[in-house]
Amino acid sequence: MGDDLRDGEAVLPFDPAARADATVCFIGHVRSGWGPDTDTPRNIGPARTTGQGARIELFEGMAAGLTGLRVGQPIIVMTWMHQGRRDLIVQAPRHADGPRGTFAIRSPRRPNPVALSTVVIASLDIDAGVIGIDATDAFDGTPVVDIKPWLPTVDMPPETDGGPAG
Amino acid sequence: MGDDLRDGEAVLPFDPAARADATVCFIGHVRSGWGPDTDTPRNIGPARTTGQGARIELFEGMAAGLTGLRVGQPIIVMTWMHQGRRDLIVQAPRHADGPRGTFAIRSPRRPNPVALSTVVIASLDIDAGVIGIDATDAFDGTPVVDIKPWLPTVDMPPETDGGPAG
Repeated sequence: MGDDLRDGEAVLPFDPAARADATVCFIGHVRSGWGPDTDTPRNIGPARTTGQGARIELFEGMAAGLTGLRVGQPIIVMTWMHQGRRDLIVQAPRHADGPRGTFAIRSPRRPNPVALSTVVIASLDIDAGVIGIDATDAFDGTPVVDIKPWLPTVDMPPETDGGPAG
Repeated sequence: MGDDLRDGEAVLPFDPAARADATVCFIGHVRSGWGPDTDTPRNIGPARTTGQGARIELFEGMAAGLTGLRVGQPIIVMTWMHQGRRDLIVQAPRHADGPRGTFAIRSPRRPNPVALSTVVIASLDIDAGVIGIDATDAFDGTPVVDIKPWLPTVDMPPETDGGPAG
């Protein structure tokens, strides 16, 4: 898997997909208007400006896990970005000024291809196991791994000298 | 696995640990002063008030993935909370006023036991693959699944009528 690399990129000496330290169970999937042939937003920031909502459909048995959520509440949606290689440890994204470590960027190509986005619940059908969300940058059908309430005390960095963004 | 439930709790009709839709590769582990016999903080909020830092040690080959991170930068650390059952879909935490869906709370007992915390890089040794962080609520030895830069445009909810907390 050492081919097709850009200048400065580096790969692990093994494929993380072949090291099963634990297993993941998909809990549902994203239904969105995005696919390989659409002008899909690069991340959740531009996705919000499209004005296109989306929804999450949970699989059989999972719906009761939504109990207690409410419309208007921010949540973190964790998706599994299964389309890319997992062995890139240094990457040279086209828009960046040089190679970056995989853990310093949000690329979906990483040892564990989990993406996070913080969105707002636009509608909620707990019986059906369906959550409407304000935006997504995920292709239609992207597997969902977890949903968590967004909590400022946990999900905002503490104040630092340079402010929250460091 | 239907025993040992509190009033109002519910379990899935299957064990998510037995449904391997994808696999996870541990990239390193947390080194902390917390263990089963310590007064471990319940989440990252109180963990910060203890003043006890911690570090993440990456496994062989992963260190280059830190290139581009810097001291003072906020990051999201994703850990694998492998100690608990994964089939609880409604839970009655002792501190809550009633049963809640698993996706409405931050309990480590969930179909995919991934925990997220947003912390600040206190020190960085990229060659050794070690990141010092300001705080953790994770036991010593907890596996790490991913590290991502915290980005306000992605990791803060959009403004809503009720403010960011909904």
